[in-house]
Amino acid sequence: MKPLIAVVGHGKNAGPIHIKLAENIGRLIAKKGGVLLCGGKAEGVMDAAAKGASEQGGIVVGILPGSDKSKTSKFLTVPILTGMGFARNQILGFSCDAMIVVGGGVGTLTEVAYAYACEKPIIYLKPGNGLVEQFSGKYMDEKKTVKILEANDPEEAVEMAFKLANK
Amino acid sequence: MKPLIAVVGHGKNAGPIHIKLAENIGRLIAKKGGVLLCGGKAEGVMDAAAKGASEQGGIVVGILPGSDKSKTSKFLTVPILTGMGFARNQILGFSCDAMIVVGGGVGTLTEVAYAYACEKPIIYLKPGNGLVEQFSGKYMDEKKTVKILEANDPEEAVEMAFKLANK
Amino acid sequence: MKPLIAVVGHGKNAGPIHIKLAENIGRLIAKKGGVLLCGGKAEGVMDAAAKGASEQGGIVVGILPGSDKSKTSKFLTVPILTGMGFARNQILGFSCDAMIVVGGGVGTLTEVAYAYACEKPIIYLKPGNGLVEQFSGKYMDEKKTVKILEANDPEEAVEMAFKLANK
Amino acid sequence: MKPLIAVVGHGKNAGPIHIKLAENIGRLIAKKGGVLLCGGKAEGVMDAAAKGASEQGGIVVGILPGSDKSKTSKFLTVPILTGMGFARNQILGFSCDAMIVVGGGVGTLTEVAYAYACEKPIIYLKPGNGLVEQFSGKYMDEKKTVKILEANDPEEAVEMAFKLANK
Repeated sequence: MKPLIAVVGHGKNAGPIHIKLAENIGRLIAKKGGVLLCGGKAEGVMDAAAKGASEQGGIVVGILPGSDKSKTSKFLTVPILTGMGFARNQILGFSCDAMIVVGGGVGTLTEVAYAYACEKPIIYLKPGNGLVEQFSGKYMDEKKTVKILEANDPEEAVEMAFKLANK
Repeated sequence: MKPLIAVVGHGKNAGPIHIKLAENIGRLIAKKGGVLLCGGKAEGVMDAAAKGASEQGGIVVGILPGSDKSKTSKFLTVPILTGMGFARNQILGFSCDAMIVVGGGVGTLTEVAYAYACEKPIIYLKPGNGLVEQFSGKYMDEKKTVKILEANDPEEAVEMAFKLANK
Repeated sequence: MKPLIAVVGHGKNAGPIHIKLAENIGRLIAKKGGVLLCGGKAEGVMDAAAKGASEQGGIVVGILPGSDKSKTSKFLTVPILTGMGFARNQILGFSCDAMIVVGGGVGTLTEVAYAYACEKPIIYLKPGNGLVEQFSGKYMDEKKTVKILEANDPEEAVEMAFKLANK
Repeated sequence: MKPLIAVVGHGKNAGPIHIKLAENIGRLIAKKGGVLLCGGKAEGVMDAAAKGASEQGGIVVGILPGSDKSKTSKFLTVPILTGMGFARNQILGFSCDAMIVVGGGVGTLTEVAYAYACEKPIIYLKPGNGLVEQFSGKYMDEKKTVKILEANDPEEAVEMAFKLANK
C-alpha cells in the first residue's frame, strides 16, 4: 500500500511562503509515490499541497468538513465530504501514516493532537510560523512516545515522512 | 474529476451471490474509470467490490468505522480511518456521486438513508435480498425527489450509476 | 440513574396528530421520572416531546445536528450542539435506554437503525404513519435479537419504554 | 436556560491536586445553578467534577467517546454515548457556554481548540500544569478575538465562567 502522507497548516491565513512550501511538499509526495491526504478546501496549505501533488500525477484525497462538493479544491482526486465540521480533523490524524505541518492555527493544532494521540510521526516545517511551533522538537505528553520532529525544508520533511511512515 | 461510486451491502452476512455480484460491480466501476468508495472492512460486499476494482487497477477508497489499519480490506488504495463507528455511514452517503446497493442490513439502510437525504442517485441490485429491498422502486419520503432505482445485473447497475453521477 | 428515553419522528413534516402524541409522550416520560432525549430542533416531534416533558418539570436533552444555539427548541434543559449533521443520529441510538418512534422519514429511520444496531428496545407508536412502520412488529436483521415493538397509544408506549429500559 | 459549563483536563494522569480542584469546581457550578458538561469517563478531572456537582444535586451531562454505558462515571445524570472517539471533543467545545480547564494533555488541547474556534470563553486554572498552560493569558490565533483567561482558584474560575456564559 502507498504511504498516506497528510499535509496540514494555514488555511485562509496562509502567506505566500506557506503556499510555496506546501505546493513543493505536495509535488515531492507524489513524486515519491505517496498518496496526499489533506483538508480538501480550496484555500491555503491544503489547496497548494493538492495542486503540487496533482500536477505531478499523484492521488489526492481531501477530507472536508462540509457536504458541498462545489467548495472543494479543484486538485483533489477524491473529495470525501464528511458533513461533520472540525470533527473531520480526527480522520486526518487517524488515517495518515505521517503528518507534515506548515504553519497553522487552532484547527491545525487539533489535527496534530489527533495524530499525536495515535502516535503517528509528525514533522513540523521549521519556518512555518504557526501554533504547533510551540511543540516543535518536544513531547506533547508525559508518556513521551512521540516527539514533534523538525524539518528545515520540503525535501527533508518529505524524506522523513516516508522513512517514518514505513515503520 | 472521476465519478465516485459507492458500493454498499451485506458485511459478515454476505452470501456467495452477494460476493460475486459485488466483485463484478467493482471491476466494472474501475473499467469505466470511476473511483470505488466502500466501507473498507475485510468482509462481505465492501471487500469483494474492492477486490474487483483493485484487480482492474482502479482506485479504491475505504471509509472505515474504526482506527485500526490492520483490520482493513487488503484491496484498498486509501484506507480512511474515521474512528467514529457507524457515524461513518454519513460520509459514504455524502461523498458518493451515486450508490449501488447489494443486499445489506441495518447498517446499509443508514448508508442509503444518508445518500437519500442529500438526493444522490441510489441503485438497488434487484436480486440483492436485503432490507433496502422494501424501498426498491419507491420514494422514501414525501418530497418525492429521489426514487430508489432498480437494476437487474451489475452491468445495468454500473451503467445507471455512471449516467446519473454525471448529472 | 434515571432512564433515558429517546423520542424521535417527523420533523418539519409533522402533522397535528404527531405533535399531540409527542407532547403527551414527553409529559408521561417526565411524570415517571425519566430523562427525555430528542433531536433538539424547534420543530415537529422533537419540539413537541420537549414541550411536554419540560412543562412537567422534566430534564430534556437535545442532540442537535448544528452548532448554532439559536436554532434549538426552547424547551431543552441541555442543548448538545454536535456540529456533525445527521451523524448525530448515532448518538441518539447509542445513548438511549429505549426509543419511542412517532412517524418519521429517512432521518428517523437512521436513528432507529442505530438503536437497533446496539440492541436497544424500540417502540413504534402504531398510528404514527412513517417509514419505520414497514418494520413495525418485525425484526430488521437475521440475528433476530431486537423486534420493533408496537404500542397503541402514548401511555402504552411510555410504559413499555420504562419497563424495557430497566432491563 | 441554565448556563452550561464544561470542565475539562487531565484524565488518567490527574494528580490529587487536579482531583481536588475539579471536585470543588463541580460543586460550585451546581451551587450556582449551572449544568456541568464533561467528558463522562470514570477518571480524572471529568469524574471529580461530576462528583462535586452531583453531590450538590446538580445536573451532570457526560459526553463519552465510546458506546459502553458501563464505563461511564457514576456521577452523571445523563451519559451521552457518542461512539465517535475523540471526535466527541468537538461536541464539548461547541455545546458549552464557557469552559474551565484543569491541567490536561493532548485531548484537552483539542477540546480547548474547538471551544476557541467558536469563540467560547475559556478559563485556565493557573496551577493546573497542563499543555494548555502555554496558551494561558494569550490569543491562539491572529484574529485575536478570544484570549485564554486565567483564574487563580476554583471560586474565581467559576465566577468568571458564569459571568462570561451569560453574555
